[in-house]
Amino acid sequence: MPQPVVVMKFGGSSLATTDRVRLVAERIAGRKRDGCNVVAVVSAQGDVTDELLERLRALAPNPPAREVDMLLATGEQQSAALIAAALCARGVDAVSLTGWQAGITTDGNHRKARIHRVSPHVVRSFLDSGRVAVVAGFQGISGERDITTLGRGGSDLTAVALAESLGGACEIYSDVAGVFTADPRIVEDARLLPEIRYDEMLELAALGAQVLQGRAVEYGWQHGVEIRALSTFDDSPGTLVREGSPMERLQSVTGVAIDRKVSRVLCESVPDLPGAAAAIFDGLAEAGVNVDVIVQSPSREGRTDIGFTVSDDEADTALEITRSAMVRLGAQGATLDPNVAKVSAVGAGMQSRPGVASRAFRAIADAGVNIIAISTSEIKISCLVRRDQAEASARALHAAFDLAMQPSLSD
Amino acid sequence: MPQPVVVMKFGGSSLATTDRVRLVAERIAGRKRDGCNVVAVVSAQGDVTDELLERLRALAPNPPAREVDMLLATGEQQSAALIAAALCARGVDAVSLTGWQAGITTDGNHRKARIHRVSPHVVRSFLDSGRVAVVAGFQGISGERDITTLGRGGSDLTAVALAESLGGACEIYSDVAGVFTADPRIVEDARLLPEIRYDEMLELAALGAQVLQGRAVEYGWQHGVEIRALSTFDDSPGTLVREGSPMERLQSVTGVAIDRKVSRVLCESVPDLPGAAAAIFDGLAEAGVNVDVIVQSPSREGRTDIGFTVSDDEADTALEITRSAMVRLGAQGATLDPNVAKVSAVGAGMQSRPGVASRAFRAIADAGVNIIAISTSEIKISCLVRRDQAEASARALHAAFDLAMQPSLSD
Repeated sequence: MPQPVVVMKFGGSSLATTDRVRLVAERIAGRKRDGCNVVAVVSAQGDVTDELLERLRALAPNPPAREVDMLLATGEQQSAALIAAALCARGVDAVSLTGWQAGITTDGNHRKARIHRVSPHVVRSFLDSGRVAVVAGFQGISGERDITTLGRGGSDLTAVALAESLGGACEIYSDVAGVFTADPRIVEDARLLPEIRYDEMLELAALGAQVLQGRAVEYGWQHGVEIRALSTFDDSPGTLVREGSPMERLQSVTGVAIDRKVSRVLCESVPDLPGAAAAIFDGLAEAGVNVDVIVQSPSREGRTDIGFTVSDDEADTALEITRSAMVRLGAQGATLDPNVAKVSAVGAGMQSRPGVASRAFRAIADAGVNIIAISTSEIKISCLVRRDQAEASARALHAAFDLAMQPSLSD
Repeated sequence: MPQPVVVMKFGGSSLATTDRVRLVAERIAGRKRDGCNVVAVVSAQGDVTDELLERLRALAPNPPAREVDMLLATGEQQSAALIAAALCARGVDAVSLTGWQAGITTDGNHRKARIHRVSPHVVRSFLDSGRVAVVAGFQGISGERDITTLGRGGSDLTAVALAESLGGACEIYSDVAGVFTADPRIVEDARLLPEIRYDEMLELAALGAQVLQGRAVEYGWQHGVEIRALSTFDDSPGTLVREGSPMERLQSVTGVAIDRKVSRVLCESVPDLPGAAAAIFDGLAEAGVNVDVIVQSPSREGRTDIGFTVSDDEADTALEITRSAMVRLGAQGATLDPNVAKVSAVGAGMQSRPGVASRAFRAIADAGVNIIAISTSEIKISCLVRRDQAEASARALHAAFDLAMQPSLSD
């Protein structure tokens, strides 16, 4: 019987120091000793990517995306070579591979390339010869043989895609133990989830959970790759991300998330005419600005207020675009409120259970917090609140849905 | 008529700071504006290569050569991306290329790979579309699609090989103005040579002149590529390295060099039997230690002394090997004297002129310096002297052969 293949991905903070690189090498070596065929996927060490970008921007404020990719890809290549050498120093035969050497081909969309295909025969032949393959994450090669990168957190995607092509398990190691019912730094009794569904994980990733990259979760979902999120620094089993687990029947809400990196744009006294909202949101869409939690107040004297949220780093662009739309519409103007946060309850179980939303609103109200706006999806309820009330709101939701407790059939 | 192609190579110290990178970009841009098709070949910035090696050795004292190459190649890739972006920021359309993207294939001899072939069609197509191609020096790709490096100073070789394949001129920029008759820091009236022969340059490179890498000169010689060595930081025309120039008929000695990085091994009281010297030097050859300036004293009472020099960084290895040979031969023992230096006069003209050697020995003796040992080639005379007398010896040779003067037919 062939040995099982496991793809182990390690992020930048797990590789930030020489001691941590040694620890990661030891983890990989242990897995190899356990009888697995191991593929390691590595990110750039610590802040290397940011430092490279800083050096680049000093020379070219708007560098061509092709050159950004050429530069950034070196960070992962360095990590791969260092880990492979550290493994060899431990007597574990290992080779490093760039993205293109590992057979990862992408489209030519620099800085956020999509994987077209993974040709795993080179990795496979190294595994077959008993070696560990250490693959530089985050990168691939386009049809024009240019080096491309997969966007922030893209090493997760590399790992999932390699696991899929090799028929192996996928383990994503970071400095947190897995996916929690809430951020444990904020909600004291937050509980590590043993399992979570792809769709729930996608919502949490979109809400700023750093454990897994959204596109990697999506890829895993599409291709049926189960992803385990676990800690580099302890031996807990972490969280398994997979297709609809039995959990969904037990609990309506799986986790609570806070996204502080949002700002609210408020358009005041907009003439309540057909196409007014479109005039605002078309411009934002064209500029690639993502808009969320849209609320339009009831019309009074032919005028209405429209509020929506955007991520902080797109706030200035959004305000500028909105203001010029206001001028065209003859509206009073637009203001920006950065002092907000989005608190969300996520859970596939809420689809089949009425009353989840009202229970959420009640919990937040009972905590003395005023909800500014609400948006919901099939498996998510988001409430916009004042930023300094976000933590209290999250604690209230966590308690209201008994997330600190292991779910049971009686829930 | 097609535009002329020029390959401009910039070394690490020319790229050590952001300001220097800007200066290099400006030089390249200027050449492009002058109507040339420009290929830039770049080394890693400043001390990047040494820093990477240090990080690697902290993890793996004896790292696999394959992984060393994988790691080090990133330094040049980073430089290439930064320069290409800096050019674009100046409005000069440019793309960076790794060694393999630029079509440089090598053997699989990691850390000192030899170039097998240069396939210039990718570079050529970028030039044809009006762009500057910025190529990462020092690296290539093996038949097994592993990343290889060409050895210290290998970016010079990249530049010469690309110039050959593109039918272009080759310019090697560094922080010195070209090749001098002697080190200007030591010999005050040292003169910049407008031209030098390949064979002379090879001898000077072997003697530690840092201006050009020996293998690059050799490659240029074999393939008929003229190489211009010049400064990044001024506009002097530098030195042209080329096939036998008219100069050779004018002057017997072209330049004087000092190599301080040598040590002398002295084998005392070796039984003067057939094969004794072979017993010593075979072992050194096997260990890859280069030996120079060998002197055997006249035999007395069936015993002889044998002295030779090795480079400082091979001295300990050489002493160890020699000592074990001494034990096998029943010799008294071997000692190491690091307090020596090699002073050489190099010139293709000395082949056809008798008396050059005696003039050199006389000049050194008149400076009050005792010559410990002598070695000569067809175009070189080397004298081993005490290290603290090396500079005086070099000055004496420089003056004796009138090197400060422009050569004339009456010389």
